[in-house]
Order: sequence, then C-alpha cells, then structure tokens
Amino acid sequence: MLPDDVFITLADIEAAQVRIAPLVRRTPVLTSEVLDQASGGRLYFKCENLQAIGAFKARGASNAVFQLSDAEAARGVATHSSGNHGSAVAYAARARGIPAYVVMPEGVARPKAAQVERLGARITYCAPTIAAREAAAAAVIAETGARLVHPYDDLAVMAGQGTAALELIEDAGALDLVMTPVGGGGLISGVSTAVKAKLPAARVIGAEPAGADDAARSFAAGRLIPLQNAATIADGLRGSLSPATFAHIRRGVDDIVTVSEPAIVEAMRALWDALKLVIEPSAAVPYAAILEGKLNVRGQRVGIILSGGNVDLDKLPWVAGNP
Amino acid sequence: MLPDDVFITLADIEAAQVRIAPLVRRTPVLTSEVLDQASGGRLYFKCENLQAIGAFKARGASNAVFQLSDAEAARGVATHSSGNHGSAVAYAARARGIPAYVVMPEGVARPKAAQVERLGARITYCAPTIAAREAAAAAVIAETGARLVHPYDDLAVMAGQGTAALELIEDAGALDLVMTPVGGGGLISGVSTAVKAKLPAARVIGAEPAGADDAARSFAAGRLIPLQNAATIADGLRGSLSPATFAHIRRGVDDIVTVSEPAIVEAMRALWDALKLVIEPSAAVPYAAILEGKLNVRGQRVGIILSGGNVDLDKLPWVAGNP
Repeated sequence: MLPDDVFITLADIEAAQVRIAPLVRRTPVLTSEVLDQASGGRLYFKCENLQAIGAFKARGASNAVFQLSDAEAARGVATHSSGNHGSAVAYAARARGIPAYVVMPEGVARPKAAQVERLGARITYCAPTIAAREAAAAAVIAETGARLVHPYDDLAVMAGQGTAALELIEDAGALDLVMTPVGGGGLISGVSTAVKAKLPAARVIGAEPAGADDAARSFAAGRLIPLQNAATIADGLRGSLSPATFAHIRRGVDDIVTVSEPAIVEAMRALWDALKLVIEPSAAVPYAAILEGKLNVRGQRVGIILSGGNVDLDKLPWVAGNP
Repeated sequence: MLPDDVFITLADIEAAQVRIAPLVRRTPVLTSEVLDQASGGRLYFKCENLQAIGAFKARGASNAVFQLSDAEAARGVATHSSGNHGSAVAYAARARGIPAYVVMPEGVARPKAAQVERLGARITYCAPTIAAREAAAAAVIAETGARLVHPYDDLAVMAGQGTAALELIEDAGALDLVMTPVGGGGLISGVSTAVKAKLPAARVIGAEPAGADDAARSFAAGRLIPLQNAATIADGLRGSLSPATFAHIRRGVDDIVTVSEPAIVEAMRALWDALKLVIEPSAAVPYAAILEGKLNVRGQRVGIILSGGNVDLDKLPWVAGNP
C-alpha cells in the first residue's frame, strides 16, 4: 500500500499524456441544451464511455504499464478487478506485448470476462471477497513474477486518470467546477491534481452513492474510514479509498457529496436521453448530485467526467422486472 | 415537387458547410475493434446521433433555412414531419429568429412533439395520412405565408445533408465504401454527391428495410416505384423517394441493399454495445446489411453514417413485451 505523503504533480500527468497518447482516444466533450436548462449551469461532459475499453481506466492502466522498464515489464502485469480496470490492464499489456493476468470473482458478469479474454489476458477466478482476490493475485504474482497494477493505489494510475481532466480543460476552456464519481479515488486524485494546477480557482467535487459513502465519511471525519458494505447499482464505485487516494482528496478536493439510488437511475436515463450516450450507472453519479440538489451549479461552467459505458443492455434499471 | 434533372454539386455542399458551421456540431467519427473483427473491414462511424436535435436532419434544415433571403424568411418556415425533420426545422428557425410551423400526425410519440415545442415551433395536428399532412401543411402555408422546407425533396436540404460526408472523409481519410440508410433519399443524395466528387473510386451503397424497400425496387427497375405500405421498426425510413432524390441515386449510388427487421434490431444492439452510443433503429440499417451478409466489406475501409439517436427508452426492441 502506498504511503499517504507522496503526491502526483501536474508534470506527472503531462508526462502521462504524452506516454499514453498512442494508446487512448481523445474523447469528445459534449454539451446539451436540455441539461443546461434543467440545471441552470453550462455542463461539459467528458465522454470516457467512448474511451478504449469503454472507460477512463484505459488511461491509468496504459500509463502504469508503459512507464515500466523493459526489464520490469518482461514478466507481465497482474491485477484483480471485477470491472473495467481488468480490461484496461489487458488492453495496455497487449499493446506492450507482455502477458496480463487478471483475477476476477466467480460469478462475474459474462460480458466482462469475455472482454478480458478477447484482449488476451489470462483469467484466474476466485471467491468473491476482497481477501480472496488479494490472495489469488498474490499467488499469480508469486507464480509468474508479474508486476501488480493496482486499480487506484498506484501513482502512475492516478496520473494517467488525470489526463482526462487536461483534455477536458483544453476543450471546454475555463471551468468553475469539475465533478467526478468516487470509488477507490484514483480518478479524482488525478483529476483534482490537474484541475488545481491548471485552474486554481475551480472547485473539484466528488460524487458518491450514499450506499458506498466511505469517501464522504472519510472527508467529513478527516480520517480514513474504510467502506463496510457497498450497496449500490453503481458497480464501479464499490471500491474503498486507500491512504494515498484519501491524501490526494484531502489536498485537492473541495467536497464529496452523496446521492440516492433512485437519483442515479434517473440521472442515467436523463443522460442517455439528452446526450445519446450509453453510460454506466457510476458515470451518472455526478449528474445525480445536481438532479438531487446536492449542489447548486446555476450560472456555473461545470466539467463532468462520464467515467464509462459498460452496461448490460438486458438489465437496464428502468425496465420493469430488473433490479 | 422538384424536377428530376436538377442536381446538387460539391460546390453546393461546400457552401452549405460554411453556411451551417455555426449551427451544427462537428460530430465525432468512432471506430470499434470488436465491430472491425466481426465484419472483417475497418468501419468508421459518423455519429450524427450526437448532432444537434439528435439527427443529421439539423444539417439540411439549417442549410435550407439560412439560404433564404431575409424577405423570404420573414414569414417563417413550415414542414410536415412526424420525426426528426420537424425538430430540425424548428431548431434552424429559432436560430434565425423566424417562426416555424410543424404539422404532425395525431398520435405522434409525445417526446417528439415535446422537442418541437421546446424549440419554439407551432404544432398543427392532422390525421395520420400523407394526404392529410400535405393538406394541413398547405393550409398553414396559405394562412401564414411561411416557406415550405420539405424533408428531402429540396436541393438545399440535400446539400446540407451532404456535409456529413465531407466531415467523414476529412476525419477518416480515403474510404472504399460509404453507406447510409435510405428513407426519402435526401441523405444519400447529398452524401453520394460529396463522396463521388471527393473520392471518385469509392462506392456508395444505401441500405433500406425490406419492409420499406421503394428505393431498392426503384433502383432495380430503373423507374420510380412509390412506397405502398411501410412496415418497419426503422421509423425514420418510411418516406418514399421523390423524382429528384431518385435521380440523384441513379447518378451517384452503386447499389441499394435491403435488410430484415430482426437484423435491424440485432445491429442496433450490437452498435449500442460496441460504440456506447444510443442510436435509433434507422441508424442501424447499414450495419444490419453487413451483419446479414448483404455485402462483403472484408479488407475495406467503410464509412457509415449513424443517422440519429432519437429513441424511446421505454420501448427498446430487445426488451420482452416491446414490439
């Protein structure tokens, strides 16, 4: 686990931007008159659902995999993830031509495992607990000599995620506020570092499901309070902050707000309708905070990272009979 | 009705591009490794679902409305449309600051009427037949002095739609093949004119639902065969060619292929999954032709216009119980 007194800088993020440019997409920034009228602000959506592998995670994993020396990379990379980060590591490793090992819980949604396989990674299944995942990853690493690429507790991953904010600012211009969802905190660590360096007057606010509110509790308490039980449709946000991401949040984030489950579903659907984009529930969480009145964006220029678009189209939450 | 011996040129489309630049979005061109592997080609999707009002129709309507003189425009514009063209005319008229009158059939989907209203147009409802629509539009025009902006039988509309192809070629580079859906033929008239001028070796192929195959029949017969009964989920493609659009198709289109209804639904879902875009059934028709093996794109660079993204999220065709 990373210590809580080492921070990434704008220079790290700018170096990541150069390093990963051949690997990631320059995703568009979209606006919507309907959403602007509804919110009273001017909203700029950074479309990381259109990123390679359908999520911003391609940025951090690519930066982590490509900053390794040839000697470090030779035996491959490993991670444990039930979601987008596993695909991202597989994607980056394939681009570098090295093996990838991904530990996934038994019972993971079949499309997610299929994408990791398609990208050429070797999957190891384990029991669906954090302890089992970490043990399985440790065993894979002991066997193969692969390097761990943690989903967020990794400075190169955080710096890679921050490149989304550099692009957002380049395309949208000056912003008063930038919002991201918060899971393990890698995205907001990178984004807040970039925003505070480029736009010192802008606020950075994280949004989190009330059912997985470790970041909000930790932020309010001033000390890291681990997540106990995550209960949210936003499956990308069930991670728990690390000491390092919490330190970045304390340094660069102005507030963490929480949202209800119905607001996440309502926001998701409103964004599909207005933007014509498939986004996953996690990506709807910042706009859910606006919908629910958790912050007032009237008259403000607001950047929002739409974190990903990997959704099971057979289980849309507004369709009767789905959870 | 326009005569069948007057054609638009590349110069008309280039003039349209300049004229409408402040009004329309430069939509992105997306690619997908998954779809490339499935098709054997290299597919470039021009995302007109992300266009203003959610469809390419904003291009043609904007060009038609803004090429009017002030005197011509002063009394407003009128059209009859149950779909995206009505919104497009309302959008362009609002930008010009003139009235818009839109005739819609009773029973039109509520979100479509709501969008036209939101854009400030006056709606006149009529019985759901072509004859009733044309009579209602004529009455509105007689009353107001508004200019008719036809959905496709209008050279300025065709030229405006062709701007999507200019941007596609600018972003994707040389292409072997460009595909569009075919309804009334306005889009493919503009696109084929642009493609044949810019890339003389490229083929242009239209795709049409088998349940609304007037373009395919007319193309095969060499004479205009009007559509009798449209039976397709692709509600944007229920229009019937005009003599002018048919003449453009005969001049610039290499083939028209037809697709089944199940292939449209399968293609729509595959595009949502792979591209993370909300597209309407009409927009899926060209890819449905590839899925169904109606043409072979192996080894080819293929541009596909994703025509629009206006879908009722409560009526997704792959959800049990929906039509």
